[in-house]
Amino acid sequence: MLANQFESVFANRMNNIPRSFLREILQVAREPGMISFAGGLPNQDLFPTTELRDACNKVFDAFGSDVLQYTSSEGVWELRQYIADHYKKRGTPNIAPENILITNGSQQALDLLGKALIDKDDRVILEEPSYLGAIQALSIFQPHFVTVPLTDRGLEVESLRQALAKGAKLMYLIPNFQNPSGLSYSEENRRAVAEAVIGTNTYLVEDDPYGELRFAGTHKSSFMNLAPKNTVLLGTFSKTIVPGLRLGWIVAPPALMEKLLIAKQAADLHTSPFTQRILHHYLANNDAEAHIAKIVALYSKHQKAMVAAIERHFPKSVAHTTPEGGMFLWATLPNGLSAMRLFEEAAKDRVCIVPGHPFYIGKEDVATLRLSFSCVDEPTIEEGIRRLGKAAHKLCG
Amino acid sequence: MLANQFESVFANRMNNIPRSFLREILQVAREPGMISFAGGLPNQDLFPTTELRDACNKVFDAFGSDVLQYTSSEGVWELRQYIADHYKKRGTPNIAPENILITNGSQQALDLLGKALIDKDDRVILEEPSYLGAIQALSIFQPHFVTVPLTDRGLEVESLRQALAKGAKLMYLIPNFQNPSGLSYSEENRRAVAEAVIGTNTYLVEDDPYGELRFAGTHKSSFMNLAPKNTVLLGTFSKTIVPGLRLGWIVAPPALMEKLLIAKQAADLHTSPFTQRILHHYLANNDAEAHIAKIVALYSKHQKAMVAAIERHFPKSVAHTTPEGGMFLWATLPNGLSAMRLFEEAAKDRVCIVPGHPFYIGKEDVATLRLSFSCVDEPTIEEGIRRLGKAAHKLCG
Repeated sequence: MLANQFESVFANRMNNIPRSFLREILQVAREPGMISFAGGLPNQDLFPTTELRDACNKVFDAFGSDVLQYTSSEGVWELRQYIADHYKKRGTPNIAPENILITNGSQQALDLLGKALIDKDDRVILEEPSYLGAIQALSIFQPHFVTVPLTDRGLEVESLRQALAKGAKLMYLIPNFQNPSGLSYSEENRRAVAEAVIGTNTYLVEDDPYGELRFAGTHKSSFMNLAPKNTVLLGTFSKTIVPGLRLGWIVAPPALMEKLLIAKQAADLHTSPFTQRILHHYLANNDAEAHIAKIVALYSKHQKAMVAAIERHFPKSVAHTTPEGGMFLWATLPNGLSAMRLFEEAAKDRVCIVPGHPFYIGKEDVATLRLSFSCVDEPTIEEGIRRLGKAAHKLCG
Repeated sequence: MLANQFESVFANRMNNIPRSFLREILQVAREPGMISFAGGLPNQDLFPTTELRDACNKVFDAFGSDVLQYTSSEGVWELRQYIADHYKKRGTPNIAPENILITNGSQQALDLLGKALIDKDDRVILEEPSYLGAIQALSIFQPHFVTVPLTDRGLEVESLRQALAKGAKLMYLIPNFQNPSGLSYSEENRRAVAEAVIGTNTYLVEDDPYGELRFAGTHKSSFMNLAPKNTVLLGTFSKTIVPGLRLGWIVAPPALMEKLLIAKQAADLHTSPFTQRILHHYLANNDAEAHIAKIVALYSKHQKAMVAAIERHFPKSVAHTTPEGGMFLWATLPNGLSAMRLFEEAAKDRVCIVPGHPFYIGKEDVATLRLSFSCVDEPTIEEGIRRLGKAAHKLCG
């Protein structure tokens, strides 16, 4: 039939991408009167909008039309220098601007890594649960995903060793305040993970979107310090400054960087020099640390309120993580009860959560769920968790 | 050897990407005292920098921090509405904002099309010569390229029919003032090409970065009017407004759009709402047509100067195109003489050109070369073409 002549022309890779169930959930979250713990947005009230506007005008003063022309694929040198200096301050020296490629948020870094590294059926190791955006970006390249369970101390090391023994192109980890679980790797676990990966030809991709947002515990080592030959770092300004400029980066060794650069050129030539210059001007002329401290203080308050409310209102049989930073907390229903059923029950009472299954490979229903505390104030947290607790009590019987 | 443990981990697709010879050429072009016809940049002197700065401040006034938050993958509605309205004005109605996806320049549209459509060894039809950026973007997906010669009236239709008869996922065409050749398709040729593609399940991708930059001849039909079911349109603001905001778009039918949207989310979630709002504010509050008329007047003057200089200084045996718009002109040396040798000879006399071979599939050396007239003033054109003519005379003997 002519009307359907294009029905079967799509690439096979498009069959592998998990349908974005999250989009539907976020529709529910936007319904009027809904209390939402579903989103993954940074708190907009804290955006340094005035400072970025000022930076914008300063960039026009300093660069004029230069900032609106085509530029190099690697990104603005000064911004890469800032990132390198920042790593040094945080205890990871030996990263030069040449090792850094600016990307459109760290989501693009995942796409470029997939392009550079993954052939169909190549093995890729993920945490279980893992970040949905990474599952989607890497799925495009049709890998064979191998999952390693995440515990409250980090990766299950024996399971990781087994996965590495069969070889893998890359392993994708969020060691600090993971999305979705809020879990972090202990220092001891990091050393064990590093030991397991050293000597293999698997790239350890350390994604660290939330690392600056620590409100408890102590700074932990980056894998760049523990297993430098294997480690690729991903970073972003989306959670610390603003997401709307779409600026992230990737730190990779020279041979991989060469491939990433080819992939970047093919993907979109280069990231906007205009947004890069604005962000760099902001960072160079403002106290970004003081700004981030404000975010940390707010999220810390929200996290404490949420944990306290959970302990007041949830059945005791519901387990939850107590994240030391970031934006998310993870709860587990008892006896394999369905988080999807909790989602449905809670939505009736105008509360929205994210059931955990999109964060797993090939699972339809699970007992885990994600709660975000970044954008909800304390009274809203109290009321939302109270309602959610009511739904959970009903479900747990 | 441990140092090389990562030597063979890269994806096969990375072996297929033509090395960016153009990068090396552009290095040569930047040497001091060099007259360059090699670049592909729009003329920066005409950028509406003041107006964009004003738009930027107005966007902060109107949207504040909203414009710095995450947003939808499709792009800003008002910008997509502007694009749809613009198509209507240019004689292509029936495009709705829903059919439009905002991309990071039209380069990203090529990446998304490759992801959505191309499996390894799928056939993809290209003009010969073709746009280098498209060859690079699509090569990532390991297609089998089939080329159809471009003539001074458009595609060789019989050769196209044969290529289509064997099937192809897509054909990539620049019907107006093509990069690299400056050639355009006649109205008659467009109708013949449309007739050949209608009824097949091959997408006709019409890339039109230069269509607005016409300084001679008359407006020609878009394939969206001639073969609407097959046609996908790519557009960009890079050549008419500025490239540095990295804004382009793709117009596609719903079934394909659904796949492109998944690919866009996986690639980088969404394009910056900040740059989209700035551009939309500029377009809605300025006379963009008057602005584009200035570009057309300047490029027309440059094109005339270049054609006149070529006719004065080049050997008569060197053929050249006389483009009706755009930024490029294409010359052909007689008797299969090497454009690469002309490049080397001309560089000694401080003139830089692009030898044609990167615009072909699998050719190492050709007799064609690209000359850009967008960024060089008339005295520079005269002097540069004089020197280039000297080198060509030497080569032609």
